[in-house]
Amino acid sequence: MVTFDEIQQASRTLDGVAHRTPLLHSSTFNRLTGSEVWFKAENFQRIGAFKFRGAYNKISSLNAAEKRRGVIAHSSGNHAQGVALASKLLGVRAVVVMPEDSVLSKVEATRTYGAEVVFCGKEFDDRARLTAELQARYGYVLVHPYDDPKVIAGQGTVGLEILQELPNLEYLLVPVGGGGLIAGSSIAAKRLKPTVKVIGVETEHANDAYQSFRAGKIIRIDRADTIADGIRPLSLGSLNFEIIRQFVDDIITVSDDDVIAMMQFFLERTKTLVEPTGAVAAAALSKNKLSISGKTMCAVISGGNVDMRGLKALL
Amino acid sequence: MVTFDEIQQASRTLDGVAHRTPLLHSSTFNRLTGSEVWFKAENFQRIGAFKFRGAYNKISSLNAAEKRRGVIAHSSGNHAQGVALASKLLGVRAVVVMPEDSVLSKVEATRTYGAEVVFCGKEFDDRARLTAELQARYGYVLVHPYDDPKVIAGQGTVGLEILQELPNLEYLLVPVGGGGLIAGSSIAAKRLKPTVKVIGVETEHANDAYQSFRAGKIIRIDRADTIADGIRPLSLGSLNFEIIRQFVDDIITVSDDDVIAMMQFFLERTKTLVEPTGAVAAAALSKNKLSISGKTMCAVISGGNVDMRGLKALL
Repeated sequence: MVTFDEIQQASRTLDGVAHRTPLLHSSTFNRLTGSEVWFKAENFQRIGAFKFRGAYNKISSLNAAEKRRGVIAHSSGNHAQGVALASKLLGVRAVVVMPEDSVLSKVEATRTYGAEVVFCGKEFDDRARLTAELQARYGYVLVHPYDDPKVIAGQGTVGLEILQELPNLEYLLVPVGGGGLIAGSSIAAKRLKPTVKVIGVETEHANDAYQSFRAGKIIRIDRADTIADGIRPLSLGSLNFEIIRQFVDDIITVSDDDVIAMMQFFLERTKTLVEPTGAVAAAALSKNKLSISGKTMCAVISGGNVDMRGLKALL
Repeated sequence: MVTFDEIQQASRTLDGVAHRTPLLHSSTFNRLTGSEVWFKAENFQRIGAFKFRGAYNKISSLNAAEKRRGVIAHSSGNHAQGVALASKLLGVRAVVVMPEDSVLSKVEATRTYGAEVVFCGKEFDDRARLTAELQARYGYVLVHPYDDPKVIAGQGTVGLEILQELPNLEYLLVPVGGGGLIAGSSIAAKRLKPTVKVIGVETEHANDAYQSFRAGKIIRIDRADTIADGIRPLSLGSLNFEIIRQFVDDIITVSDDDVIAMMQFFLERTKTLVEPTGAVAAAALSKNKLSISGKTMCAVISGGNVDMRGLKALL
């Protein structure tokens, strides 16, 4: 399990390294929803997503011998960049396994931060297989994208900052992929305000967490067909699921169309670029999926990394 | 002429009404330019552009009889929304003359803020003609988009805020359309730091201010062929030109392609949406049009209102 103290420790580790991202609001959105809504803007985080927090917290926790061995991660997206930048800042060698059909800009960004990119096949399982192989051969330390206490504690600083700045918060909405962000954030939020409701949000064709929450056990889906790439992990991590069962109040879903409409709203109204996964939690509010109003709410914008070609296709 | 005191007065008038917009920076942009660059983010201003400042300052300065008569303005873009919102906040009736081929979203936004929209022909001169007609017939007070001391003083609060927060600024770059923003901002900047260089930036096929600055008299161009709609006025205002001659150090130009590349940089790297005119000053830095480095500089992002269809076409 991960404790509140470990999240506070992560917050000290990240102080001056990660950005303390702003809480945005939109009077138009408040009028539309009838609530007081805040957006935690992790699209303004270093590397453009919250993933930097967990990666840095994990890698900085390694001992000298582990740091000399270097780290390995597999990711097609933000975790790759988070591990690459964190490693560079900490002087640790990083290898990132990416699918051969990754978006070129994400590969380039990962390399720009100094990581070595190794390509694998397109199937999700290919990544883990090659990563394990390289790990065994070269002794690299794995930086898991979500199923790791240090990663969860790092992501939990998102929830910590929100409740520090919004002590009267009533609802916290968080997108759910592997579950790192919501696990850490729910621990922090519930400790600072036990009555806050923490709601996970997925897209409807990638709803493994929704199913798992209801079944009381981890459900793995066969495919995750969604525009929100951060929601695509086919199942929750086991550590993440245990925390979610304990601290999360519900998991709900939105459609991909809801997500695209929300991205456009962010662009038009707040002049900010939000990636599909980053718009998932806010979309649940714009569609009033909780059927409530008059509350103080915060939706986490998990990131803002959108390929320009991908953005063009969405407009 | 407009005095520094009038800009300070405008600042008090706008306090709590206009947003004090943030100064953004990008370590990538600093590395690329070799300078310390700040961006004054007026795309986060109310109505998404600096125009709100001047419109509010002007309308709030009217006496009770003038306020009862109502105001009129002509604009296809941000000035329309600025006048509409300012009028609404001040309880003043507003009529806005817009060309019949205006972007629908801008017409809708102007109406949403409560202004009455009257359409005119597509030619630039059609607007002024119909505006003068309505003004004569109904006694409306004109809110000129730039050639007005109160409007200039309101826009000058942009420069005031920048120099208050960046007292060591060496270069201030400002986009130039009719000249309201640069006129007001240069007065404020030079008063707070007489050695700061104030540079106006236009696009190369709408370079009337560039020509006027060199000729020492207002040059009117026949057409302004540029993606940056805020740069399209065919000539500077006369009051604006007098101030520019006194307080601006140079006017330079960038290409439309430079502007589009800069918009993409803002989206990809800072996750912020900037309209073409808003990217003009920053584009001059990214292309190192001043041939300098190692300086502390600020480029004004004048606005962020981009139609989603227009944005799609640019990506």
